[in-house]
Amino acid sequence: MPPFIHDDFLLTTEPARRLFHEYADAMPIIDYHCHLPVREIAEDRRFENLTQIWLAGDHYKWRAMRAAGIDEEYITGGASDYDKFLRWAQTAPQTVRNPLYHWTALELRRPFGITEELLSPETAPEIWKECNRLLARPEFSARGIMKQMNVRVVCTTDDPASDLADHEKLAAEYASGAFPIRVLPTFRPDGVMPSDCESPEGVSRCRESVDRLSNAVKTPIKSLADLLDALASRQERFHAVGCRLADHGFETFRYSRTPNADPENAFKKVLAGEPLSENEIVALESAILFETTRRYAEKGWCMQMHLGALRNNSTRLLRRVGRDAGADSMADGEYMRALSAFLDSLERADALPKTIVYNLNPASGYALAAMAANFNDGSVPGKMQYGSGWWFLDQYRGIREQIEILSMTGLLARFVGMLTDSRSFLSYTRHEYFRRILCQTLGEDIQSGFIPNDLDAIGAIVRDICYNNARDYFAF
Amino acid sequence: MPPFIHDDFLLTTEPARRLFHEYADAMPIIDYHCHLPVREIAEDRRFENLTQIWLAGDHYKWRAMRAAGIDEEYITGGASDYDKFLRWAQTAPQTVRNPLYHWTALELRRPFGITEELLSPETAPEIWKECNRLLARPEFSARGIMKQMNVRVVCTTDDPASDLADHEKLAAEYASGAFPIRVLPTFRPDGVMPSDCESPEGVSRCRESVDRLSNAVKTPIKSLADLLDALASRQERFHAVGCRLADHGFETFRYSRTPNADPENAFKKVLAGEPLSENEIVALESAILFETTRRYAEKGWCMQMHLGALRNNSTRLLRRVGRDAGADSMADGEYMRALSAFLDSLERADALPKTIVYNLNPASGYALAAMAANFNDGSVPGKMQYGSGWWFLDQYRGIREQIEILSMTGLLARFVGMLTDSRSFLSYTRHEYFRRILCQTLGEDIQSGFIPNDLDAIGAIVRDICYNNARDYFAF
Amino acid sequence: MPPFIHDDFLLTTEPARRLFHEYADAMPIIDYHCHLPVREIAEDRRFENLTQIWLAGDHYKWRAMRAAGIDEEYITGGASDYDKFLRWAQTAPQTVRNPLYHWTALELRRPFGITEELLSPETAPEIWKECNRLLARPEFSARGIMKQMNVRVVCTTDDPASDLADHEKLAAEYASGAFPIRVLPTFRPDGVMPSDCESPEGVSRCRESVDRLSNAVKTPIKSLADLLDALASRQERFHAVGCRLADHGFETFRYSRTPNADPENAFKKVLAGEPLSENEIVALESAILFETTRRYAEKGWCMQMHLGALRNNSTRLLRRVGRDAGADSMADGEYMRALSAFLDSLERADALPKTIVYNLNPASGYALAAMAANFNDGSVPGKMQYGSGWWFLDQYRGIREQIEILSMTGLLARFVGMLTDSRSFLSYTRHEYFRRILCQTLGEDIQSGFIPNDLDAIGAIVRDICYNNARDYFAF
Repeated sequence: MPPFIHDDFLLTTEPARRLFHEYADAMPIIDYHCHLPVREIAEDRRFENLTQIWLAGDHYKWRAMRAAGIDEEYITGGASDYDKFLRWAQTAPQTVRNPLYHWTALELRRPFGITEELLSPETAPEIWKECNRLLARPEFSARGIMKQMNVRVVCTTDDPASDLADHEKLAAEYASGAFPIRVLPTFRPDGVMPSDCESPEGVSRCRESVDRLSNAVKTPIKSLADLLDALASRQERFHAVGCRLADHGFETFRYSRTPNADPENAFKKVLAGEPLSENEIVALESAILFETTRRYAEKGWCMQMHLGALRNNSTRLLRRVGRDAGADSMADGEYMRALSAFLDSLERADALPKTIVYNLNPASGYALAAMAANFNDGSVPGKMQYGSGWWFLDQYRGIREQIEILSMTGLLARFVGMLTDSRSFLSYTRHEYFRRILCQTLGEDIQSGFIPNDLDAIGAIVRDICYNNARDYFAF
Repeated sequence: MPPFIHDDFLLTTEPARRLFHEYADAMPIIDYHCHLPVREIAEDRRFENLTQIWLAGDHYKWRAMRAAGIDEEYITGGASDYDKFLRWAQTAPQTVRNPLYHWTALELRRPFGITEELLSPETAPEIWKECNRLLARPEFSARGIMKQMNVRVVCTTDDPASDLADHEKLAAEYASGAFPIRVLPTFRPDGVMPSDCESPEGVSRCRESVDRLSNAVKTPIKSLADLLDALASRQERFHAVGCRLADHGFETFRYSRTPNADPENAFKKVLAGEPLSENEIVALESAILFETTRRYAEKGWCMQMHLGALRNNSTRLLRRVGRDAGADSMADGEYMRALSAFLDSLERADALPKTIVYNLNPASGYALAAMAANFNDGSVPGKMQYGSGWWFLDQYRGIREQIEILSMTGLLARFVGMLTDSRSFLSYTRHEYFRRILCQTLGEDIQSGFIPNDLDAIGAIVRDICYNNARDYFAF
Repeated sequence: MPPFIHDDFLLTTEPARRLFHEYADAMPIIDYHCHLPVREIAEDRRFENLTQIWLAGDHYKWRAMRAAGIDEEYITGGASDYDKFLRWAQTAPQTVRNPLYHWTALELRRPFGITEELLSPETAPEIWKECNRLLARPEFSARGIMKQMNVRVVCTTDDPASDLADHEKLAAEYASGAFPIRVLPTFRPDGVMPSDCESPEGVSRCRESVDRLSNAVKTPIKSLADLLDALASRQERFHAVGCRLADHGFETFRYSRTPNADPENAFKKVLAGEPLSENEIVALESAILFETTRRYAEKGWCMQMHLGALRNNSTRLLRRVGRDAGADSMADGEYMRALSAFLDSLERADALPKTIVYNLNPASGYALAAMAANFNDGSVPGKMQYGSGWWFLDQYRGIREQIEILSMTGLLARFVGMLTDSRSFLSYTRHEYFRRILCQTLGEDIQSGFIPNDLDAIGAIVRDICYNNARDYFAF
């Protein structure tokens, strides 16, 4: 049997293979959205073993292990790293058809060079040994892997209160030529949003974020105006360090142009530790959202919106493991009218930034893509982007579906392409995975006569989607 | 390279090719739903140039141009027709995989005979010249194109207040044999519906429609009963001119059997120019809808329902360009219970007409198809129809999806088939596009053994869907 | 022309054919969810003719016949069995691409051996004669067919008030070796749920169920506590007869941890025949649901949840034919938050049973599968199951979609597989249909390199899904 992952993996037609090998493969990576810890890049972390770099923090794998009947002790509990790895090796063969199956094989192949064997209980000891041997080498440090994977730009995701010290250090190294990869912050002010302030726990969480922000700007925050000033001040700081993207996550997207409560009063209640009514949340959320995002347009930033997650469903896991424990799924509520009102409000104020919307619930895909496209205004090619497959949809079928939806409702040729959204330095093969699927899709199209058999024209679009569009759109 | 659009375009199997060429292709066209301006047919309009017939009014192309970064001046603004055309030529190559790419090529091929070249900045000047040369000929007038495309019946979409003079003229010409195509009106009373009467602008809009209707019937409308009488009177008039279809568009479908407000009072408020509450809107809407649609059954008409649009999202474009400016997308609310109550109310009153439901948000497709089918009663084959792919879904994938959903939840063999829904005389190739996709779908099925390899039986179904079913179902 | 249904029906690749013939085909059937009348198994019913065993009670066929324009007289009315059969034969060819087309051919092939001809008006008389001839034989009795189809276990669906006498008889025959198939009850307490108690009819229906339950336990039910005790008592009884599954159907899934009404008071109103408010329904439903389902975990049962149906849409058919008349379709409301709260409440109480969720509206598929998977806890492999395609989705495309969604969000390898959900003894070929589709899917995957070309490993997964997983998971 030839290796499962080979040069032509997922490429079943001649045009697909040519598009991938001749056009896509050599393009560098702009990973414009991820959750890598910037500290680990700044310190150039070395990893003790495969579990540390591969399993710790990966709630995708945790979910699969729980479904396979593995005890939590061996997932997020106190078991040894090797024992955890063995349980993952026991689970991996059961993930056939799940994206984890492909990711696992791709990540062992690059950077570790393991191509002959798939992970299983039988192959686990040898793979453990070989990967750990490599991880001890300098080219398998955090930075080493990034260089191996041909990364040019990485955007981390950061709280407005972040001191940005690591980003400054990295910027200096980039400027001096000491480290050839740009590592930029992304402004993510979710912490100060009152989304879950209907509960005392939510209010506490929100107040803590406001306190951290207050410390960061060394100014008390006693009113909504203070809060907005503090955010504006941090935004300037982020911009100075090279930030060109913001990011917002929403469970239910709520927005009102004419809220039924006073946002200033609502914010005072938060400061006083009092829970908010639904109306107060909407009022306060709308005010903060509008005033914060309008500034993105001024700076030429891109606003990312992540829509449709329903998080922390299992109280048991929230208490035992914390947030991002693998107990998140998709919300199914109505939100298009609210989103329309929000984007329209910005546009009316001449303050709609470049925007990427990401969708989690596949039922919303078409509506969301078409909604965003309502607000293209000719000022920037591809201004309103329907973002690549996210989280549960970052898989073979979800990636193809995103390509289909974008193609049918907009301009695929203007797509800014893939990102990893990952917490792990091993995830860069997601770009390869995406590129294979993109080329396979277009290759099938050529084969069936759905698009012209013009490899140069289609190959140019492939290169644009892999790299050029993101470069031009974000203008780092 | 052979031409992109060739005789076997989209037909990848032998059975598909035979179904298309031997069964589908020769069938005439019944275009039972479109937005062609009847005046232009009556006057047999000639078009000065390609921009006039092709770009003016086409909000699909406008959206693509905005996404490509074209300034509004060159889309709906004051730029010259040629400059607008050049901008479209610059955009067209970027639409690869979007339905516009196929439509553009198909429309240049028929009626203009341009097959060797695809529209691009390079080919634009030559194509402009050639098409304008042809447009100057009599067989490229409004009627000329309709005849070239083998059209038998066209149903326009008309306000109840329309004087129907053009339809009468065309009916007379049809009767005398002077013009071989039937051009019939469709009764679309959306104007007098109070759907957006929560705002003063909505109330004004609604009152103006009521005023126009009042003028048309030459009777004051001072009560809900007057309104219903006026609609009934116009319906008689429409029927006399050959109308056999009605059409209703809904943003949110609302209906209540037991509304929480008095419809008569609500209508009085509209006449007085006062905005309505949500409850009043539902009450008034339900009353008008029920009383109007029950008459369709009496006349043997077909009721069309267009569900799931969310319109005029961009205030900027609404103000600058107006309605239908390319800023519409899909609503995502819940409406199946309300639709069930409406259809059931009609059925209980023995007054449910033949009905076609059209869906815009793909998330609602299965539920809507299955909902409609609940009300088949054996009186008319295929009485309740799940209509063909509409608007954003009138594309390769949406058409296949409609065929799939209909097949899986009902009887594809009874499907009344395609319509253009278009404002342009160049859109008749949409029927060809649909037929190719239908034949490709069935051809793949034969090839894979999913349906029997019985070309005569399957070909008969193809012919029925292309023409015979619509002829029998609408009984013009 | 070779027969339409042949050995390799739906299997277009070599790996698919090998997976089906070498791995899937020989596996016995565990039909863990159906609606067969247990009485007919206990009495080993003989069927007078094909209409009795095939058309009576089959609302799928009824819907198709209504859509084909057949009068209700020949569907559920007083026409003769033969006339009804002829009308079905007239409809069948029109169902091409609908699952009925395949089911019809598969069911005539097994057990009746009719392979050369498809049902049509021409073939109807001969097929009627041949099938009736076979139905007169002992091996075509209810039990005879079950044996022919290699069934090992069947779980019927039963009201808590059922006396279980037939199940006891069958258990004794199984124990003695007289009948080799286990026929077990499933606990379905929907009758006592107050879901539709907003109307007087709903309250009457609910009270009657409570009365039946009271009779069954020979104890008055005067309070919510009494109701819960009675249910618990019946659950013990069901368990003793071998029941290991429960089932709940929901139109709108509602659940509140902190309801705005008192459940005890609400139940008193039901007993007094008074309709409930929405808040009271939610309070009472939540209380009964939580207290009933937590006991499933104690007993090691599996809880089945059927989500997303909207029933009895046509009052005309409800009055003429009754429930399950073919006027049901899909609900489109939001329910993920409520479902999350319910599952989380059980988990927090350490009382979440093994659970299978079944989805009717395809728009909810991904969200539901991902929601269930949030609650895998490592205690049982595949504890939370995304169930196989149900009702409108129990068709070629729906089955593939379920496999895709499960694969992409969880572990296909742990799937407990297919069930018939049927009222007819002729439906066992649904298992064959499912297996062909499963093998075709995996065969395509092998062919395209999406999964490894390792027939032994993939074949083992196929066998697990066909039989082994269900055997281990339910542990009858």
